[in-house]
Amino acid sequence: MSNDVRRTTRPRVVVVPDSFKGSASARDVAAAMAEGVRAAAHGLAPEQQPVVHALPFADGGEGTLDALLGAWDVTAREAETTDALGRPVVARWGLSPDGTTAVVEAAEANGLPQVSDVPLQPLEASTRGVGVLARAAIESGCTEVLLCIGGSATTDGGAGLLSALGVRLLDADGVELPDGGGSLHRLDRVDTDGLDPRAAAVRWRIACDVTNPLVGERGAAAVFGPQKGATPDDVTALDTGLRRLAEVLHAHTGMDVATAPGTGAAGGMPAGMCALLGAEISPGGELVADTLGLPALLEDVDVVLTGEGRIDSQSFGGKVVDTVRRLTPAHVPVLVVAGSVGASDTELAEAGITGAFSIANGAEDLDQLRTGAVAAITRTTTQVMRVVLHR
Amino acid sequence: MSNDVRRTTRPRVVVVPDSFKGSASARDVAAAMAEGVRAAAHGLAPEQQPVVHALPFADGGEGTLDALLGAWDVTAREAETTDALGRPVVARWGLSPDGTTAVVEAAEANGLPQVSDVPLQPLEASTRGVGVLARAAIESGCTEVLLCIGGSATTDGGAGLLSALGVRLLDADGVELPDGGGSLHRLDRVDTDGLDPRAAAVRWRIACDVTNPLVGERGAAAVFGPQKGATPDDVTALDTGLRRLAEVLHAHTGMDVATAPGTGAAGGMPAGMCALLGAEISPGGELVADTLGLPALLEDVDVVLTGEGRIDSQSFGGKVVDTVRRLTPAHVPVLVVAGSVGASDTELAEAGITGAFSIANGAEDLDQLRTGAVAAITRTTTQVMRVVLHR
Repeated sequence: MSNDVRRTTRPRVVVVPDSFKGSASARDVAAAMAEGVRAAAHGLAPEQQPVVHALPFADGGEGTLDALLGAWDVTAREAETTDALGRPVVARWGLSPDGTTAVVEAAEANGLPQVSDVPLQPLEASTRGVGVLARAAIESGCTEVLLCIGGSATTDGGAGLLSALGVRLLDADGVELPDGGGSLHRLDRVDTDGLDPRAAAVRWRIACDVTNPLVGERGAAAVFGPQKGATPDDVTALDTGLRRLAEVLHAHTGMDVATAPGTGAAGGMPAGMCALLGAEISPGGELVADTLGLPALLEDVDVVLTGEGRIDSQSFGGKVVDTVRRLTPAHVPVLVVAGSVGASDTELAEAGITGAFSIANGAEDLDQLRTGAVAAITRTTTQVMRVVLHR
Repeated sequence: MSNDVRRTTRPRVVVVPDSFKGSASARDVAAAMAEGVRAAAHGLAPEQQPVVHALPFADGGEGTLDALLGAWDVTAREAETTDALGRPVVARWGLSPDGTTAVVEAAEANGLPQVSDVPLQPLEASTRGVGVLARAAIESGCTEVLLCIGGSATTDGGAGLLSALGVRLLDADGVELPDGGGSLHRLDRVDTDGLDPRAAAVRWRIACDVTNPLVGERGAAAVFGPQKGATPDDVTALDTGLRRLAEVLHAHTGMDVATAPGTGAAGGMPAGMCALLGAEISPGGELVADTLGLPALLEDVDVVLTGEGRIDSQSFGGKVVDTVRRLTPAHVPVLVVAGSVGASDTELAEAGITGAFSIANGAEDLDQLRTGAVAAITRTTTQVMRVVLHR
């Protein structure tokens, strides 16, 4: 129940929360928790004052761009591009302070919500806008692009993105195919002579937590097509097109992306990138952690604080809390502050969570809880950290 | 942040909660917390397993009888007596396992709720039933009676109680007065020859947290009379009667109970007892703590857990949490589990509370919170104690 190190050095506390969706961004949550840690230290001797390192965190899904902007303490950059249906949009992206790493949330350019104002067009929807956005990032001179691909409206195997970066997808007559997965069945060959050399040079890392292959009954069209508006016939057409894309990419590179795990995510966007850009697929949480240097930070720490809007059994499948626990040495306590705690004591213990606490003060409805979330996060963190620090 | 003792001995945890009014008795709360402590210890080495001592606690007010029955692990005894209006009732009381200490809640025999079925009769309401109940306790052979006096319907200065124990209150013609404070103005003298010798021999300890004197504008009639149905005229009559009682008692014993702090509590019940029975008035929390041997228990402990239905600024005025904190060595953490936490971080810190936690899991209404209270107390205690035990 004690630790010699603590006798001689100030306790090191790392704060790495997810956002509380609908209530507070990861940046706001991290700030509120850090304030709570400092409040909990009130009255302690100088040598007992915690050293707090606060980092907004995310799992590679929605909100990852905001979390990295917060962790890097930079503002979003913007680029003019197009949505999944080719309509002009201004999309955000982020660049690390040292200029080496860019983060792109594909959904800024090919997101499903953006095209929900018109009937869904699964056969025409394209990732071209994502490629234009990524090109803006590459032109910054970065050496690595972190691509988050969730929430897409597209099923084109990344064809549009490749086109935007200079790859020509040609039919038997040498004519470039129109955008959209619906035309891929006519793909005859790819011409990479015009590929932007910077696009070929940077390291592409794709955040992906699903293992679906590009094609087949677990593939991009069959599993994710319907939620993007694909009828059974559309699914067949899209799957045929993706198979053809895989064949052509295999002939061109020798790499088989048809059945590789994860290539079926986000309408197959990773497929073309893996084959022609050497893109790597990684679980989102680990990828964001690496980008933030979290593994090194967590090697030498006394207490870790994390949190999310709701912690339940699903939180332990590659989500933020799960990633934080896996990166933290086993002997170091990991404390969770959450909007609501749905996991049982047993589930929490088995997941290696030392303690999980709701921000609720008592009987409160969801609106009260959401409205007062930031203040309640500070309050709850203060109480929990007082237990840790005052012994 | 560490403690040498903990390296070599099992952590000693004392659990001393109040009841969660409307949700769970102190006995149930203590059991639920103890279960949480044991659950939190799951997976710890034998030498790290906490030694848990659980005691239901109370502040001398409503629920004190139940708390002591729970702490003593005995069932309630019953006695046939009368309510404040002389109607037959069966009242409960408790006796410690060693038979030395009896606990009596006066309200079992003179409580306001018991007589709320008829128009209030402030001038006639009597403590005689409390005396009959106390006599039953004394007949058990106990050497000490702990009397809790809250919630009374009476303003008779304890005259009825004294009568039940053999004291005769006489008018100028030597005729015994009828019951009720309304007749006290006619009191001429008291005759204690018939006082039950056992009543004179036992130690009477009265739990009282108010400092009101027997008479005057802060007295029993003026302050508490109206809520017992006294009109302004009744208040004047009752105050006159209590003044007369004080004069007669002073003439008989040389003791002035008219202005002594606390003699005005519960319709002046302590006045007659202090003068004729040598009763001692003590703050309820301290009295119950003494009865349970809590001060000694808390001298040698590593962690203290307490709780109540709601912790707010009022919790720090002699209530359970406040008493527990004052009896616990300053360096020992005191943790609070409560239905709701209304006190601010600053108030809690200034009150010496190490951490306070609501049993709410998230957005829940009061009914949900109450229905699931016992399970939620165990769950919250488990999470808090895991933070304490797993380092």
